[in-house]
Order: sequence, then C-alpha cells, then structure tokens
Amino acid sequence: MNAIELIRKKRNKQSLTNEEIKYLVDSFTKNKIPDYQFSSFLMTVFLNGMSKEETSALTSAMLYSGKVINLSAIKGLKVDKHSTGGVGDKTSLIIAPIAAAAGVNVPMISGRGLGHTGGTLDKLEAIPGFRTNLNLSEYKNVLKKSGAVMIGQTKEIAPADKLIYALRDVTATVESIPLITASIMSKKLAEGIDSLVLDVKTGSGAFMKDTKDAVALAKSLIDTAKSFDKKVIAFLTDMNQPLGNYIGNWFEVYESIKVLQGDYVENLSELSLTLAGAMIYLGGKAESIEDGIVVSNELLQNGMAFNKFKEIVKLQNGDLRFINEPEKYPRSKFSEKIYADKTGFVQSIDNYEIGMAALELGAGRLTKDDKIDPKAGIIFNAKIGQSVKKNDLIAEVFTDKKNKIDLAKSKIQAALKYSDKKTAKPKLIKQTLS
Amino acid sequence: MNAIELIRKKRNKQSLTNEEIKYLVDSFTKNKIPDYQFSSFLMTVFLNGMSKEETSALTSAMLYSGKVINLSAIKGLKVDKHSTGGVGDKTSLIIAPIAAAAGVNVPMISGRGLGHTGGTLDKLEAIPGFRTNLNLSEYKNVLKKSGAVMIGQTKEIAPADKLIYALRDVTATVESIPLITASIMSKKLAEGIDSLVLDVKTGSGAFMKDTKDAVALAKSLIDTAKSFDKKVIAFLTDMNQPLGNYIGNWFEVYESIKVLQGDYVENLSELSLTLAGAMIYLGGKAESIEDGIVVSNELLQNGMAFNKFKEIVKLQNGDLRFINEPEKYPRSKFSEKIYADKTGFVQSIDNYEIGMAALELGAGRLTKDDKIDPKAGIIFNAKIGQSVKKNDLIAEVFTDKKNKIDLAKSKIQAALKYSDKKTAKPKLIKQTLS
Repeated sequence: MNAIELIRKKRNKQSLTNEEIKYLVDSFTKNKIPDYQFSSFLMTVFLNGMSKEETSALTSAMLYSGKVINLSAIKGLKVDKHSTGGVGDKTSLIIAPIAAAAGVNVPMISGRGLGHTGGTLDKLEAIPGFRTNLNLSEYKNVLKKSGAVMIGQTKEIAPADKLIYALRDVTATVESIPLITASIMSKKLAEGIDSLVLDVKTGSGAFMKDTKDAVALAKSLIDTAKSFDKKVIAFLTDMNQPLGNYIGNWFEVYESIKVLQGDYVENLSELSLTLAGAMIYLGGKAESIEDGIVVSNELLQNGMAFNKFKEIVKLQNGDLRFINEPEKYPRSKFSEKIYADKTGFVQSIDNYEIGMAALELGAGRLTKDDKIDPKAGIIFNAKIGQSVKKNDLIAEVFTDKKNKIDLAKSKIQAALKYSDKKTAKPKLIKQTLS
Repeated sequence: MNAIELIRKKRNKQSLTNEEIKYLVDSFTKNKIPDYQFSSFLMTVFLNGMSKEETSALTSAMLYSGKVINLSAIKGLKVDKHSTGGVGDKTSLIIAPIAAAAGVNVPMISGRGLGHTGGTLDKLEAIPGFRTNLNLSEYKNVLKKSGAVMIGQTKEIAPADKLIYALRDVTATVESIPLITASIMSKKLAEGIDSLVLDVKTGSGAFMKDTKDAVALAKSLIDTAKSFDKKVIAFLTDMNQPLGNYIGNWFEVYESIKVLQGDYVENLSELSLTLAGAMIYLGGKAESIEDGIVVSNELLQNGMAFNKFKEIVKLQNGDLRFINEPEKYPRSKFSEKIYADKTGFVQSIDNYEIGMAALELGAGRLTKDDKIDPKAGIIFNAKIGQSVKKNDLIAEVFTDKKNKIDLAKSKIQAALKYSDKKTAKPKLIKQTLS
C-alpha cells in the first residue's frame, strides 16, 4: 500500500477500503505521508466524494488517532448536541444545564468561534475564571458531580482532525460533506457519548447556505453516527437571522441567563426547548421529543435549569457574581444605536454580515491569533417579518474599538432589507431527521 | 490574488485567467506557494480539466519560467519532432539526420527513458564519447554547422516543468492532458522552433493506451502549438508492438545505423520516412508530406543521411569507430534465445511487458538513480499477424545480469499471444491531424 496508489484510486472514482483509509490517516498523522500528498488526496475526496462506508472509515481512522473517553464509570446515558454554527447561537449554554437537570449526562466538548460564527468556548470564557481547559480526570469529575461538563478539545482527542483541518483550511477543501462529517463525528464520538442531537443550520448565516447541502450534511452525519451504533436526531434549522437578540460572547451568556431564568426569547427559546427536549428523550428521561420539551420548559420555569448552570459554572471555577448580577459585568467603552432608515417590514437579513459586524467589533477572530473582547457585540432587535417605523431602534453596537463602529454600523444597515409588504417569518425548525 | 482563492476557483470548475495561471506557476517556481497547495491545484486540473486557453496560458507560464532559445542567427526554418514515447522507438536518431540532410534545421532537445519506454538521450549516450550536455552556445554551434543537434534539457529550459513534473509524479497527477500538453510544449517551444511534428502513440506500449485519449492529447498539443503561431502536424501511430526489431540503447543505435545505411525494417522504416517527410515539408524543403517522404528515401539510399548522422556524432564528440563498425561494440556477458511455444499466428503483443523486460535486463531505470547498461536489450523478431512454427526463434535477450534472464524471458513469453487464425497487421499510421 502506498499513498500515490491510493490517491490514484480515489482520483479514478474507485472506493477505498477501511484499511486503505486508515493507512492514509495514520501515515499522515505520524508524518509518514507528506502534506503535498495528503492535500492531493483531500482534493480527490472533495471532487469525487465518499460513500457512507468510506465516510465512516474516515471518521473511525480520525477518532482512533486519539483517545476515546471511557465514561462507563458514570451511570446513565450520555448525550451531547452539535451545531454546525451560526450567529447568536448560544443554545449549548442553555440546553446542557436543562438536560443535566433532567438527569441526562452531557459531556460537551466544544470549539471556538470560526469566521462569522461564535464558539461556545469563547462564550464560556467570557465568564471570569471559567476553566475550559480541564484535563480528562477533571472532566469526568465535573460530569459525575453535576451531570454536565463543558470543555475545549484536548490534544488527546482526535489529533488527526486538527492536522487535517489545518491542511484543508489552506487547500480549499473545507466545504466537503464527507470531510466535515468525519471532522465533527470523530470529535463527538471521542467524548464517549451514547446519543447525539444535531442542529444543522441553513440560511444566510450558516456555512451551508443551501437547504439541499444542509440536508445532505445532516444525512451524512446521521449515517455515520448510526454506523457507530449511536442514536441520533438531527434538526434542520433556520439561520437567516440571529438566534435571540444578543450577539457577542458575554452578551450571549447574558441572554442565556435570561432564558435560564424563564424569559421567553423569540426563536432562541423555541430552538433551545426543542434541542433540550430531544436530548432528554435520547437520554431516556422522556417518552418523546415533545415530552422532553415539556420537561425542559418546567426545568426553566422552576429554576432547576438555572441552578444547574450555576453549579456547572462553579465546578469549572467560574465567578458566580456575574451570573447572579449580570448587569455588573464591565461595559464596552463605546456604543452606538442604529435606527431603521425606512418604514415597512423587515424582508431579509444578511446574517453573515451581522456575524462579520460582531467580529469587527471584537467578538470574533479573523486569524487564529486575534484576541477576543468578551464585552463586544451587538444587541439586535430586528426579526424577519417584523413591522418597523422609520427611526425605530434596530440595533446597538458595543466595542472598545472606536474606529470599527462605522464599519459595523454600515454592515448592519446594509444587511437589512425592508419591504412594503409583510414577509412571512422563516420557519425555525424546517425538518427533523433521524 | 492568492493560491487558496485560485484553487477554489478551479475546484468550482471556473476558468482561470492567464494572469491567475501565471501567478500560480511563477509563485510555485519561486517557492512562494508551498507544495501542498500546488499539488491540490494540480488535482483540480486533473479532475476538472482545462480549456484550450487555460492550457495555452499554463504552457506560456512554464515556457517563460526559463529561457527561450533565440535561433534567429541561423538561417532557415527550424523543425523538431516529439514522440509521446514507446518501445523500440529510435526514429529521432534516423529522422534528425534525414531532415538536416534535406536542409532543414533540427534543434532537438530530448529526454531520458521513462518506465517501459526508452529515451533518445540514453540511446545517444550509448555511443562512446557522445556529449548530450552541450551548453547553449555549443548547441547553436553544432546546429549551425551540421543542421541538427541533439541534447538533453538544460536548467535554463522551462525550470517550472521540472519542479511541476516532480510533484505530479508523487501525487498521481501525471496522466492529465492539459498537464502533459504544457509539459511537452513548454520544453519544445523553448528550443526556438518554427514547426513541430508530433508522434502520438497509442496501444499497449504507449502511455495513452486508448485511441480516444491519444486523439484528445494530439488535439490539445496541436491547439497549444497553434496558439503560439507554430505549424504542427501530428500522427497518431501504433504502439501495439515494438518499432523495428531491436530494443535497448546501443541496439537501437545499431538498428538506426542500418536504416540510415538504406536497410528496410518493417514499421520502423515506414514511420521514420513519414515523420522525416513531414519535417522536410514543414521545413519548406518539400511541397507535401508525400514529397518529403520521397526526398527522405533518396537521402537514405544515396548515403547523405548516414553521412549527416556521422557529422552530428563527430561534432558532439561521439566515437565514430562504432558507427563505422557497429559489430565491434562490446557484447553483453549473457544472452539467451526464446522460441515460439506453439505453431500459429502472432495475435497480440503486450508491448508494455516487452519494454519492462528490456528494463529488467538493464536497458531502463526503475528509479531515477538506476544506471543504464547500454549493451542490454532484446532482439525481437515477432510482428503481429506473422506466421510462426513451434520452436521458431522469436527473440533473444542480452544482459550482464544473469539473475534477470528468467524474469525477462517469462515476461516476453507471456506478452505473446498466438492464434490459429491469421490476425490483421495493425495499421501503423492511424490518423494525421493538423
């Protein structure tokens, strides 16, 4: 077996065997295949695709490049959620405590913000003192005590994914369904989960803008999870506008606290209840997703979900003062309000541009080394279909970078399209697949 | 402009502009784009192809990565021939002297053997003392004096091709029509030619085994040559059996001498006359290819072509003793005869295996560093359609490597298929394109 022969095989649209895929991934991870051969292989996968079986073998090879966490010492089912990323998507912070409060174990390993999208880790780290870099024994400890734990990827988890992702990023091979599937699933399967809820986004603020691509990705993720005997439910959800009204790292913690305290926030609450409901169902603590939603709502209203959140924050060293009194969190040096420039209905929102505006204000990174400002962000009041009058308050931007305010404001203004006719609200949960 | 963006463009089946292709080739040649990005780009070209215009731009970028030889000081038209490679293909040694004797300038830069095929340089170097590494001023001098010169690629010629070829070789991107076209044409155009004769091989001993692929390559080469205002005639020729009866480096010089002295050798003589006829026509020394063939035949029969060959050998420092008395050339230590194992007609020859048998005997290289034995080779008497009796002499192998004899013999035996019915001879010149 050699790399050239295997590249040629995939190049000629032939299927690779499990052993051949394992050979490629293992050799690349051990630096026995040079980057220029592996990038050539990645392009054959990008252009010729992979079968279900090949995608599963690729996931397996990447998964077993590292450690699979053994959670058998912890009783009960372990369920996680993965989202393909969006703007204002803070559901992880809300649903992990809900599911844990319902008695489901939630071992959550999350990522950082990427481009226009935020990342759970960056949000958690907006809480002073919160440690996302627990080692595996601390990870198991927190999970055992509170029923949920939220950390970042450790170097033991799927090291092949990190190397492969870095190469994909610089060789135009990111947007490939089998490669995305293996990257997501190798990391999730390493957590030691029994089941997984998937939130696959579609729309202007998603990575998969077309519903067709998003459905294909959802199906590929489901097939792969099943090939590892994991139960999985995938929701195809709308990302044509931000989730909730707050974008930016601390802002999103703040809005999560409000939802955990029982506030109802359009689209954010609905999605959180649905995802948590599915987790509770998969975790064996409800008879159906619908039943799980009812349980979730109760746990929000009776304060148990919020108490669970505080318990997790405390166990991971976070400062509870700002959770109890979020209004005391430091504010950005500058803020400016944005008003509707005409009367009518919000017809569409270029949600990618809203995410990019937040990034420019300091909430995201353009390069890996950029530092995030946890305070920076946007309060964004507009929703598609909403009626507005000229000069109504639409949004407010917050930043320490005075020179970025105009750019962010113009991005937000340009992202909003108004119409004389009322536009229908986009359907939040477009499809449920399993 | 950046590499990732351009890889993405070609990946998405969009056309690249001349400037974009030049940027990629120049940056790669100057080591400003890493191998892993360029190999990814090469795979997009392999899988998505290139238009005529893109192939021409790629050729131009590779051509102008080095020097284009200026032959304007030498009067008359300059014409070369390129073959895509075969087994026993020694026509260059025959046609360069013929065309030069007819008054056409033949500035010939050739390559070495590759895999199962021989290379003109290796054959010339079988002549003791023959220098293929002339510098550019020596090159021009020999051309001016004798009307022909035969050297190897210099580092001034298309350096991008050398770098790109090395990367293609290890990333399964060799067999791509636009990449092959640019590689061939960038080197040929650098010679300073006016016109080019192409011998595109098809059949079991060719790189393009299918006629359809060979025709596509011929058309791509023609289109590219025309885009540089060069006249070109391409012949699609049969490579289902060796050309002539001698395979191996000195053996091929020997057979060339025989043809240059007026001997008629089946398929080799016909192809040599046709190619030389086309060169003489393109060089303005005949009214048509047919007229050029008549001229060529005269130059063989009246000894002028052979005299021209000796003149070239002498000017390039070759020892004329073995040209005048080829029987005195050293012989291999071992030789063995192969006999027909049944009575019937030769139905087919796996010509690739004949080439590989010669390689095993010492006539070729498996890796770049292998040394060639100029004496090693095969005298191969069988031709498709020929009637044989059991135990007729079919071939004789020559080598200094005793341990390779059995392997070579079994390859040759296995390559020959016999039939009870007479098989038609393959048509040598299948198509003429221009």
